[in-house]
This record gives sequence, C-alpha cells and structure tokens, in this order.
Amino acid sequence: MQTSTTRVETFSDGVIAIIITIMVLELKLPGLNKDLNAYDIKAHIIDILPRFGAYIFSFVMVGILWINHHHMFHLLKRTDGFLLGQNIFFLFWMSLIPFVTGLLGANPLLTSSTALYGLIMLMTSLTLSFMRSYTLKKGLVHTDEEREIKKKIQLVTIKDKFQSYLSSAAYLVSIPLAFVSVYLSYACFLIPIILFLLPYGIDEEQLAEKVIEKNS
Amino acid sequence: MQTSTTRVETFSDGVIAIIITIMVLELKLPGLNKDLNAYDIKAHIIDILPRFGAYIFSFVMVGILWINHHHMFHLLKRTDGFLLGQNIFFLFWMSLIPFVTGLLGANPLLTSSTALYGLIMLMTSLTLSFMRSYTLKKGLVHTDEEREIKKKIQLVTIKDKFQSYLSSAAYLVSIPLAFVSVYLSYACFLIPIILFLLPYGIDEEQLAEKVIEKNS
Amino acid sequence: MQTSTTRVETFSDGVIAIIITIMVLELKLPGLNKDLNAYDIKAHIIDILPRFGAYIFSFVMVGILWINHHHMFHLLKRTDGFLLGQNIFFLFWMSLIPFVTGLLGANPLLTSSTALYGLIMLMTSLTLSFMRSYTLKKGLVHTDEEREIKKKIQLVTIKDKFQSYLSSAAYLVSIPLAFVSVYLSYACFLIPIILFLLPYGIDEEQLAEKVIEKNS
Amino acid sequence: MQTSTTRVETFSDGVIAIIITIMVLELKLPGLNKDLNAYDIKAHIIDILPRFGAYIFSFVMVGILWINHHHMFHLLKRTDGFLLGQNIFFLFWMSLIPFVTGLLGANPLLTSSTALYGLIMLMTSLTLSFMRSYTLKKGLVHTDEEREIKKKIQLVTIKDKFQSYLSSAAYLVSIPLAFVSVYLSYACFLIPIILFLLPYGIDEEQLAEKVIEKNS
Repeated sequence: MQTSTTRVETFSDGVIAIIITIMVLELKLPGLNKDLNAYDIKAHIIDILPRFGAYIFSFVMVGILWINHHHMFHLLKRTDGFLLGQNIFFLFWMSLIPFVTGLLGANPLLTSSTALYGLIMLMTSLTLSFMRSYTLKKGLVHTDEEREIKKKIQLVTIKDKFQSYLSSAAYLVSIPLAFVSVYLSYACFLIPIILFLLPYGIDEEQLAEKVIEKNS
Repeated sequence: MQTSTTRVETFSDGVIAIIITIMVLELKLPGLNKDLNAYDIKAHIIDILPRFGAYIFSFVMVGILWINHHHMFHLLKRTDGFLLGQNIFFLFWMSLIPFVTGLLGANPLLTSSTALYGLIMLMTSLTLSFMRSYTLKKGLVHTDEEREIKKKIQLVTIKDKFQSYLSSAAYLVSIPLAFVSVYLSYACFLIPIILFLLPYGIDEEQLAEKVIEKNS
Repeated sequence: MQTSTTRVETFSDGVIAIIITIMVLELKLPGLNKDLNAYDIKAHIIDILPRFGAYIFSFVMVGILWINHHHMFHLLKRTDGFLLGQNIFFLFWMSLIPFVTGLLGANPLLTSSTALYGLIMLMTSLTLSFMRSYTLKKGLVHTDEEREIKKKIQLVTIKDKFQSYLSSAAYLVSIPLAFVSVYLSYACFLIPIILFLLPYGIDEEQLAEKVIEKNS
Repeated sequence: MQTSTTRVETFSDGVIAIIITIMVLELKLPGLNKDLNAYDIKAHIIDILPRFGAYIFSFVMVGILWINHHHMFHLLKRTDGFLLGQNIFFLFWMSLIPFVTGLLGANPLLTSSTALYGLIMLMTSLTLSFMRSYTLKKGLVHTDEEREIKKKIQLVTIKDKFQSYLSSAAYLVSIPLAFVSVYLSYACFLIPIILFLLPYGIDEEQLAEKVIEKNS
C-alpha cells in the first residue's frame, strides 16, 4: 500500500522535473537548424551566453527548491486536503519559472524582465514558506520522543523558516531595485543560494531518515 | 513488492504532470526571442494576458482533476483491466487540454474555441465520473467495518458523485451557451471550481489514510 | 527499500508518459498563434483532422503498449542487466512514435509515411515480444504452487505471446502493403487493437495481484 | 513510509526520462508540417540522417548513464545533503545533452559542435564518477558480511570506477582530437559504449537485489 505522502511527492517530482528540463529548450535559437559553419556556431554560443547564464541560475534555484520541498515532505507523517491545494499553488508559480527565465535570458538588462523574474521567484519562495508554516501549525510533521532528536528537529525547523523568509525578503527587495539597477537585483537573487549553501551543522537528509526509521 | 494501484498512479501522475507543465509553453509568443526593449515587453505581457488567463484556469482545473483522481485511487484496494483502459481514456481527454487552452487563450471571444474548450472539459469530467461509478459498482473501493468510518465513506462517495455529475452538467450547458455569449460559458466554467472549493466537513485525504492504515 | 522492478517501471512510465503527451504538440499548426476568426478555426480544425486521427490511433497504441508492459513487469520477481538493456531498446523505438505520428498525420495518404509508421510499430511490438520471451526463458516470472493459478499464468503467457507475435506479423505485412494501398496498411494497424480488446476470460491485472499477494 | 533513496531516484528518473524523450523533437525539420509528396519525404529522411545518428548515439549514452545511476543508487543504504547537491549537478550536465545533440546532428562535421559534445559528455561522466567515489568514501553503500558477496561488491566497485574514469578519459581526449579530425572524436565517443557492453561475469542488477534482500 503506498502511503499518504508518496503520491503528492511523485506528482510534484514530475512537475519539477519537467520544469527544470524544458528550460533547456530556450537555449536553442531559431537559426540553429540551418547549416552552420564554425564561425556561426561561435557567434551562436556567444549569443546564447546570457540565456545560458539565466538557465544555470534557474536550474540551481529549481534544484534548491526541490531539495527544500523534498526535506519538508520527508518529515511529514501525513497530508490533508488543504496542503494538496497549497502544493498545486506552489507548483503553479514554479511552472512560470521557464517563462521568466526565457524572458530574462533574452533581455538580461531590462528592468521589466528582471522585476518579473524577481516577482515569480518571490511567489515561489513565499508559497513554500506558507506550506511549511501550515504543516507545523497543523501538526503534520513527525516528532520524536528522544530529547536530542526533538531538539534537532526544532533547530532545523527554525533554520528553515528563517532561511525561507529571508529568501522571500531578498526577492521582494529585488523588484523595486530593478528600477534602480538590474545588477542590484542580481545581487539579491544570489542571497537565497548563499543562504542555502551555508553550513549549519545538521544534515537534514540524515535527520529525516533517522526520525522516519524510528517511527515506522 | 509494489502494489496494485501504484503503477497506474505513477503513470497517470506522469501524464498529468506533463499536461500541466507543457501548457506554459503556450505563453511564449514567437517574437519573444528577438531583442526587446521595455516597451515591447509591456506590449508582450498585455498581449499574452488572455493566454495567461486561460493558463491559470486550465492549471486550476487540471490541479482539481489530479486531486480528484488521487482521492479516487487512494481509496481503491485493487484495479482491474477495464479500469486501466478507462484510465487511458480519461488521460486521452486530459491530453487535449493544452491544445484547447492554447486555442482559447489565442481566441478568447470566439464561439468555436469556447465551445471546444467546454467539450473537452466535459469529456474529461465525464470519463472521471464513469471511472468512479465503475469502481463503486465492482467493489474495488476499500470499505471499513467501523460504523462511523463506513458512514463517512458513503457520504464522501455521494458528495463526489454529486459534484462530478454537476460539473459535467455545467460543461454540457456551456457548449450551447457559447453560441449565445462566451461570457455565459465562462460563468459555467467557474461552477466546477466553486463546487470543489465548497467546504463540506470531511477531509477526504485524511479519511483515505485512516481507512488504509486500518486495512493494511 | 524499493524493490527490484520498481525503478525500471518508474523510468519506463516516465518515458512512456512523455511520449504519449508530446504527440499532442503536433496538433498545433504554425498559424494558430495569430488572431483567428470563427471561419479560420473551422478551417484549422478540418486541416488537423488527419493529424487528430493519427494522434488518436497512436495514443491508443501507446496506451495498449503501456498496459502490456505493465502486465509483464507486474509478474516479474526480479530483473537482470540484459533485461534493462532490452527495456532501453524498447523505449528507443517507442520514442520514435511521436515522430512517425507527426509524419503520418501530415501526409496520411503517402506510401512512405505509412510504411515508416508500420516499421516503427513493428520494432516496438517485436522488442516487447522479445523481452517477454527472455523473462520466461530466464525464469524471472513469478510462479505459484497452486494448480489453478499456475494454469492461469500459463494460459495468460500463451495468450500474450500469441497476441504479440500476431501483432508483429500484422505490422510486418503492413509495410509492403503500403506500396499497394495505404488503406490496406491501415486495416493491418487495426489488428493489434482488435486482438487487445478481444475478451478471453482472465483478468491479467487481478491475476498478477493474486500471485504477488501470495508470494510476498 | 517511503525510504531515503526513493525520492531522489524518482526525481532523477523524471529528469532523465524527459531528457531522453525531448531529443526526439530535434528530428522534426521546420518543413515537415507542409504538405509533402513522396519525394520530399525521402529527401527529408536523408536530410535528418545525421540528426538521427546523433539521436541514436545520445539515446544509447543517456540509457547507459541511467543504468549506471540506477545501479549506484540501488546499492545505497542512505543519502545525505551533499549527495543530493551532487545529483542536481549531474542532472544539470545531463540536461545539456539534448542541446549538444541537436547541435551535433545539425553540424556533424564541424570541430566546434563535436568538441562541445565531447565536453558535455565529459562533465556528465565525471560528475557521476565523483558521486560514486563520494558514496564509497562516506560509507553510504550497502555492505554484506558474507565473504563471497563482499568480494563481489568490491569487484563491481573497482570495475565501475575503472570504467567510469576510462570513459571520462576518452571524452577528455575527444575534445582536442576534434581539432585534428572529428572522426577521431567519434572513435573516442564509442569507447564508453564498448566498455559498458563488455561482459565481466557479474550481473550488477542481481547482486544489488541479493544484498538488499539480505539487509532489509
């Protein structure tokens, strides 16, 4: 019998896998299908460099969002109807990432494309944060009686909350900053990645497994 | 050993995940790849507003259909060959949603695109309803000996049937109404969403898990 | 711990789900993005009718192939390295179905597109048949000690072999027939569908589950 | 409860399934949608032959990479946060395969497209090798107390390491060789496939299952 969270994760994984992969279709410029010589390919590669930059950036962000989503659902003992709805809402904003990535890659120095990119990333980040808060409030998260593990879960929870709200704040600030200089927005876009890569002493993946092993 | 319903759900999840995601490709207009200035992007955004509306609408509907499909299979104890065939038939109509969404988004005020959209949604809704009726008739659904849970399953079943046939009726009516006014059709399209969002006191997700836990 | 056959099935399901879904992209003609009037849409719909026919046909065939693939792996107790390779080979031929479907839909009355379609379907059908024979020869299939179930498994096995080799034969014959008349080829294409839909008294899905339940 | 490695595999399977499937979209030339006669189709088929060659080649390589990835995760008892990050990095390089396959298929005799193809394959191969080394170093791999199985696991590990570093070396050499002759690069591209197909006496798939059965 498959358990409660499996199918939500399978479906989300499917959607996120498609999102992360169809962005690569943006790298193909219309002229690529014609016969090219070596010079054309070099020009083509230089031409797609900003698209490639936007692609790398979005790929990393979707990867981070997937890892966070994975960690969050990993610690859930069950889901409810409202959480399913919130997850669809989260996936909706995720699904717009290929669109704004294409827009930003084609027009990297424009205020409007940069601000729009920041807006979609903000919504993605916020909906994930709200989902996390909801699961905590409703008691859908695994707990543990052992003191040390309990403490670790609390620490991880606080860390994750802090991280996701700080990321949301960075994206929020990036939108007005795009009207001053797009480079300031780009600096904001880096903050969530730095926050994610900071070491903080607890391996969430291993913690989740320990808790699950004990409770199943 | 993976159980009976797992692979049908994995396959359906894959197909639905792709359907919900490739619709976003419709948002990209042909001109987007060229170098644009800020004015062009604004014009482009305004230009795609009806497409974006159709996208949001179809995304919500596919999300609702996925949740209903998920709830239905969640309560099944086994599948049979005919149900697999019906599921493929359901996925066939689902697979046409990106096509009619693109058509409606590009031509939101035309009778023909609106009527076609209603027709595809009608078929999707009907095939899901027939699948549900079939599983009930063939006794593929989990039952429970406990009185209260049994009653809840019956209530949920009646509610789901009512909801899905009412949704089908709304789509059926939307087709002739498109020839009077497309706005009347749009009003019909909202009915299934409202029916889905109405609170009715039982969390189907939690009920399914309770039943499954007891029977496995 | 996930068991042996799960990941092969997940991967195959993913590939087949994408194959069955990207075929719908062929339904969109280049002109669809422009503003259309009601007359244009009608012309467009008539224009895509042969494509739509090819889409329905391929959707049904991919669905049948998925059900057969599912039934085959459902009865396996384990996989081996060579079977993984054969499965990739099977998926390779499957992956060409959207290409030949597009070709056939755009040119339904041409010998070359019809013969090519028959060739790809032949290879798909043959590789699945070989995979089935291999699993039987290598003893990868579940057996059962109970006499009646054993007999049923044997019957199903014989039926499946007969069905898949007869389908392959129909596709093989369809290739030369395309040079006489494409309508004769179309008649051949219907044979595998008719063979699949014929009732033969045993529900493979239910049988597989009974065997698995007893052996796990 | 789904276990530790399941979701990483599901997500990776999704991404790899999409990568292997969207490459087929490259086979469609722009002119295919118009009405064609038999002569045009023959010309079209001849025109796409190099693309088709690149498609077959990349399909086989992605298939081999999937089987290797599958074998590696099959033997893992758990994952950690860093491994998740490495897996995303591996999938990033994988996701560029459709792009370089399209480039190589359209320009099979150019130094730049061949060298670029070699570079992406090198990165894909290297990141998988590093992931394998990491899991061994961190003790994430299943071990077994039985002497013979332990020895087999060691043999397989050595063989896999040897194979993946030799493949990486072949791709590394293929890049400068493309500036001498693209045919020399093509010869290098064949080495990983030959290495994979060489028989070496142990069925990795069956070994993994034996170990897992004993330890769960």
